[in-house]
Amino acid sequence: MRVLVLGADGYLGFPTFAYLQEKGHHVEIVDNFSKRQWEAEFSVTPLWPRNATDSRGIMYCDLLNSRRLYQVLEEFDPEVIIHYAEQPSAPMSMSGREAAVLTQTNNVIGTLNLIFGIVKHCPKAHLIKLGTMGEYGTPGIDIEEGWLHVTHRDRAEVIPFPKQPGSFYHLSKVHDSHNLLFAAHNFGLRVTDLNQGIVYGVRTKEVDALTFHYDDIFGTVLNRFILQAANDLPLTVYGEGKHIRTFLNIVDTLQCVELALKNPAKPGEFLVRNQFTEKFSIIDLAHAVVDAGKIVGKSVTINKIPNPRKEAPEHYYNPTNQSFLDLGLEPQCLTDNTIAEMIVKVSQEPYDVSIIKPRVRWSDA
Amino acid sequence: MRVLVLGADGYLGFPTFAYLQEKGHHVEIVDNFSKRQWEAEFSVTPLWPRNATDSRGIMYCDLLNSRRLYQVLEEFDPEVIIHYAEQPSAPMSMSGREAAVLTQTNNVIGTLNLIFGIVKHCPKAHLIKLGTMGEYGTPGIDIEEGWLHVTHRDRAEVIPFPKQPGSFYHLSKVHDSHNLLFAAHNFGLRVTDLNQGIVYGVRTKEVDALTFHYDDIFGTVLNRFILQAANDLPLTVYGEGKHIRTFLNIVDTLQCVELALKNPAKPGEFLVRNQFTEKFSIIDLAHAVVDAGKIVGKSVTINKIPNPRKEAPEHYYNPTNQSFLDLGLEPQCLTDNTIAEMIVKVSQEPYDVSIIKPRVRWSDA
Repeated sequence: MRVLVLGADGYLGFPTFAYLQEKGHHVEIVDNFSKRQWEAEFSVTPLWPRNATDSRGIMYCDLLNSRRLYQVLEEFDPEVIIHYAEQPSAPMSMSGREAAVLTQTNNVIGTLNLIFGIVKHCPKAHLIKLGTMGEYGTPGIDIEEGWLHVTHRDRAEVIPFPKQPGSFYHLSKVHDSHNLLFAAHNFGLRVTDLNQGIVYGVRTKEVDALTFHYDDIFGTVLNRFILQAANDLPLTVYGEGKHIRTFLNIVDTLQCVELALKNPAKPGEFLVRNQFTEKFSIIDLAHAVVDAGKIVGKSVTINKIPNPRKEAPEHYYNPTNQSFLDLGLEPQCLTDNTIAEMIVKVSQEPYDVSIIKPRVRWSDA
Repeated sequence: MRVLVLGADGYLGFPTFAYLQEKGHHVEIVDNFSKRQWEAEFSVTPLWPRNATDSRGIMYCDLLNSRRLYQVLEEFDPEVIIHYAEQPSAPMSMSGREAAVLTQTNNVIGTLNLIFGIVKHCPKAHLIKLGTMGEYGTPGIDIEEGWLHVTHRDRAEVIPFPKQPGSFYHLSKVHDSHNLLFAAHNFGLRVTDLNQGIVYGVRTKEVDALTFHYDDIFGTVLNRFILQAANDLPLTVYGEGKHIRTFLNIVDTLQCVELALKNPAKPGEFLVRNQFTEKFSIIDLAHAVVDAGKIVGKSVTINKIPNPRKEAPEHYYNPTNQSFLDLGLEPQCLTDNTIAEMIVKVSQEPYDVSIIKPRVRWSDA
């Protein structure tokens, strides 16, 4: 199939390209390289330099430039579009007005342009859009996949599962989902919306060293813990760490995206799948890293620090990922050995201790 | 109170200013006059020229210009901000990519800038934001005011009432509501979100001739019917006209806004009120205009034309407006005499027959 990957310079985009190409698809990749600019703006770099080959073959395209985007869609005529091309950082989006505006403009307007480009140039293409489990927030009811069956005053209805996101970044993804649901129904587009958990992993079968961010802006909590464990720093847990999040290995991201590709939304359908394999509280995750450290001779400690974010400190959390399990997803779960391997790989690299501490507080505007 | 009205050049903004000033408030008014530009773009004009005094005292401010907006907020230090400053047309938002992007940029980013301006310069101000009943769409369950009590797999929760808007304009208001809910919770802002029905009325006690749009872009269905009845044209009903919408007289808009002002959201609260007084199917509304026509000697006919929009042709619809009734709203309902008076007033003016027919079809991109 002709597959277009948007945001191919990112942590997920490049291995998706390599994986799908290996599977025999004709994959074209584009990016506007804005993530590199944002990294410079916040003075952060990934742990190891991007592989020079990573950007080989990436065509320049900014989704905010509709003319260029339309050109790409017209010339390549994709059958599948995998859309990772968004500003991915919640802390960045909360670092002030300019960043909030940049995030929502880049993500929402970029995706709007994409909607119109698809209608005009490849209306049958299946759009696979990456969202996040964070869109749902932490409601006191089980989190379904996009839709909720309710009975209200004796009437039954299926309604969009309401979203309660916790940052301007997460909000941008919620706005995208609303625009895409409408676009599917109004223009007959085929849209799969993947609400993804926190992805970890430093390599795939096809790519040896994936971009590894451990900083406060683009890093994830598990990456931070691994970097800290590898370098004999205490793991910084925000608050009591009793908040629960979903996770998956990047090899399962690839598996899920391929399953989504093989099981497309129908014309006019907005298909929602939750894309994760496990859930942990942050403190349990920290303890797993402590245990994994022992395997490689590290004595890891935990340091609780004030939570810079506003999050429910304790909450019910029961999201489902049944849709991918039904399609045959075989989760590669997080083991002490997986963590230990990452600690070893990371411990060989020089790092910048100054970019770990959170600089962005949610309460500041 | 010091009240800032954003979007004071519009149909609702100017009479709100006049009404609140009459009530003794200190009201400052701003606009960027973009609606006049959009009218020119679509070659439409309101029925009678804007009163020259209408724009007297309006300060220029574009919400997309954060520096100017911050200056206004800092200098006036409003206690209440009434926010009408949005692109208000669903057909305009559906007229192509540029207009969709303009609508969502203007509305969503403008309101984002306003959020940050309030946090910085007047964090105690009560923001009254105009949304629309169209945000809810037409779900098969009763429409509550912003929140829905559900029980799901034996767990109870109060969730945001899910939105299913039907145009990029309505979507922009939904995005605003999500951003504002977050801003209230995250920054402690006081926000009232008013989901308003379709407003009608050609004058208030304070303003004699309100902007009257009967065109396909900025006109409302009732205005179109009144113009058609006044000029012996058949009333153009979209489809079978069985879709149901909510309505209110502009004097009730003023009453509601004043009630919202007097009963503000608390710090950190996102308070939702549905602002309408009645609901009618479009065909019933047309028949009401036919009946009113008889009072003034008009023999009015009805002409069903294909619906340019995508709307549920028939649907359950039961929204509540209990919140304003509880606060003492005394609805001024739509009577044959009210319609007849509007027909008479409108029939004295020259009009442009070419701007009535719908030019924008929802299915076109």
